[in-house]
Amino acid sequence: MARVPQHSSSEVLDLDQPLPLDSGRVLWPVRIAYQSYGTLNAARNNAILVCHALTGDQHVASPHPRTGKPGWWDRMVGPGKPIDTSRFFVLCANVIGSCMGSSGPADLAEDGQPFAMRFPVITIRDMVRAQIALLDALGIERLHGVIGGSMGGMQALSLAANYKNRAGAVLVIASTSRHSAQNIAFHELGRQAIMADPGWQAGDYYSSAVTSENGGTRKGPDAGLAVARMAAHITYLSEQGLTEKFGRRLQDRDAKTFGFDADFQVESYLRYQGLAFTDRFDANSYLYITRAMDYFDLAEEHGGSLTHAFASTPARFCLVSFDTDWLYPTSESRRIAHALNAVGAPVSFVELSAPFGHDSFLLDVPALDRMVRGFLQ
Amino acid sequence: MARVPQHSSSEVLDLDQPLPLDSGRVLWPVRIAYQSYGTLNAARNNAILVCHALTGDQHVASPHPRTGKPGWWDRMVGPGKPIDTSRFFVLCANVIGSCMGSSGPADLAEDGQPFAMRFPVITIRDMVRAQIALLDALGIERLHGVIGGSMGGMQALSLAANYKNRAGAVLVIASTSRHSAQNIAFHELGRQAIMADPGWQAGDYYSSAVTSENGGTRKGPDAGLAVARMAAHITYLSEQGLTEKFGRRLQDRDAKTFGFDADFQVESYLRYQGLAFTDRFDANSYLYITRAMDYFDLAEEHGGSLTHAFASTPARFCLVSFDTDWLYPTSESRRIAHALNAVGAPVSFVELSAPFGHDSFLLDVPALDRMVRGFLQ
Repeated sequence: MARVPQHSSSEVLDLDQPLPLDSGRVLWPVRIAYQSYGTLNAARNNAILVCHALTGDQHVASPHPRTGKPGWWDRMVGPGKPIDTSRFFVLCANVIGSCMGSSGPADLAEDGQPFAMRFPVITIRDMVRAQIALLDALGIERLHGVIGGSMGGMQALSLAANYKNRAGAVLVIASTSRHSAQNIAFHELGRQAIMADPGWQAGDYYSSAVTSENGGTRKGPDAGLAVARMAAHITYLSEQGLTEKFGRRLQDRDAKTFGFDADFQVESYLRYQGLAFTDRFDANSYLYITRAMDYFDLAEEHGGSLTHAFASTPARFCLVSFDTDWLYPTSESRRIAHALNAVGAPVSFVELSAPFGHDSFLLDVPALDRMVRGFLQ
Repeated sequence: MARVPQHSSSEVLDLDQPLPLDSGRVLWPVRIAYQSYGTLNAARNNAILVCHALTGDQHVASPHPRTGKPGWWDRMVGPGKPIDTSRFFVLCANVIGSCMGSSGPADLAEDGQPFAMRFPVITIRDMVRAQIALLDALGIERLHGVIGGSMGGMQALSLAANYKNRAGAVLVIASTSRHSAQNIAFHELGRQAIMADPGWQAGDYYSSAVTSENGGTRKGPDAGLAVARMAAHITYLSEQGLTEKFGRRLQDRDAKTFGFDADFQVESYLRYQGLAFTDRFDANSYLYITRAMDYFDLAEEHGGSLTHAFASTPARFCLVSFDTDWLYPTSESRRIAHALNAVGAPVSFVELSAPFGHDSFLLDVPALDRMVRGFLQ
């Protein structure tokens, strides 16, 4: 990753004590970078915590400071939008382990050197622990709601299970209560691609910056990270969506070249996605966050029972899955719904039809907008 | 790949003229390594051509000369087995582009240096053209049948479409008439992993052998090839099969280690599969064969119509798909069946239930055995 020099558009919170972790270790120092939209009311009860996905960040509804692109949920968050910032105070914090301002492997440890692989392995619950520290610092005792898609949904579930009085409404989109063998397999593939890249250097690549063709600085296992991103990207799309978007169409040519250039549009697209990702993400962060996701098993954390995880929850829940999502298919949301039913929690559960696969939660699915708006009333 | 010094258990045919290719180029010199089982009868009409898959080889029912493992279809081919070698003369040739004796990028070009990336890009039809040359050399005018799973099924389809009088029965298992965008995407991911490995050296890695820990020679982009194999391997298994086989079980430990070792059995399994593959396969062959598969579109070759491809075929067909195969799902076999119906060809089409995903065609599925045995009568 080319180092992001500052996160001028984010606010930061530096914790005044170490953050305890599920591993038994602690994280120190701890910085949490966050972004907010709307105004916290006097009662401090109109806050909605948005939790971001694996490669997401706190820039939900404002331009990404590095790419200049609109926020990743710009269509969902804003005045009059489904998550209405004229009513709600919307908060999103970069997860620990990431690389957009919150403490991660690229940041400096106490000895003034980057953590690199000395950064402790974290879990989804550890990420949530950091979010709770932020809420405490902001004086938000109870969220109106917590919402997230994919890994964001895991955090929402973890918050609901482990901090039962901190959220009134829990909205989980395209997510799961545990990572399956296939989910783990795809992540392991990505990690092996990164760690096989000689540029990885056992994670100690931060000081070996080189100047790239376009004058920017490149460092580390960019090639491996690009391959990891390509693999993940395939899992985010549906077979149907790929066929509709690309089919077997050729890229800027009339006939196959009988070579190894990107003849097909889908090849060209994937190569671009892989390369673009290396400009905005740190490879070690990718290792740590995928590990946290693989470790996620909410039932296991609660005596092997998802019902135990939600016992006596005072929150109401909404679960949304997408019919073309093969990464976290509807059956995973159904499992969560059954556990919530078993403890008598109010739960809405709907499978939406959308052609975009797992990525549907980020894209133009009007039925999702209606679900979110309605549930947060 | 550690070079395989000889293929003592295979016979070889050296063509006496160049092989014309779909690209307009020719392959020269051309060696075809093949294996046979059973006896060709006097009428030369009891031959069954078995076509192997991407990383398969001619050692169908006899031990692999390098790994010592039983032939890849040992359970299917032999005396009294579904493909009964007491009745049939069973023939399997290593595809051109591969690395088990037939001409491929690791072999020497006319100038005495390995072809490497000077090897011409080939197609499935080119592979079949080589098989036909072998049949001609053996005096086999008409096969009793041609059979193959996965890429082997593509060859069987291509042979049926392009050499209409050469096979009486065509058996296609877990295959497709064209590579989808998602299929291409996974292959491109594997190719990028190989080509991103500095050991690839633009394909010219054959002379840079190094001695590995275990005393064997290793060369080339082993790390990239292992990642490519891991990616492919995930696509060969079903989500259900992975869950049944591994679930979230830990590997030789009681608790998560909060590190990046292979905590989960599925991680350990994938790493092993990736590494083991590099001992028996050449990375450049992987590039060329995946490219051939991506280029495969039988309809496109025949005026954009699958019906045209099979027009006036005298053969009878059998198509088998597996309900858990998400690489080449049943809908792909159905498309072929519809085209065969449209031209009035005799066709049996069945979707079998098996938990193993795409790999079902190689594994213990008794219903498949019965289908194969019955169809070849």
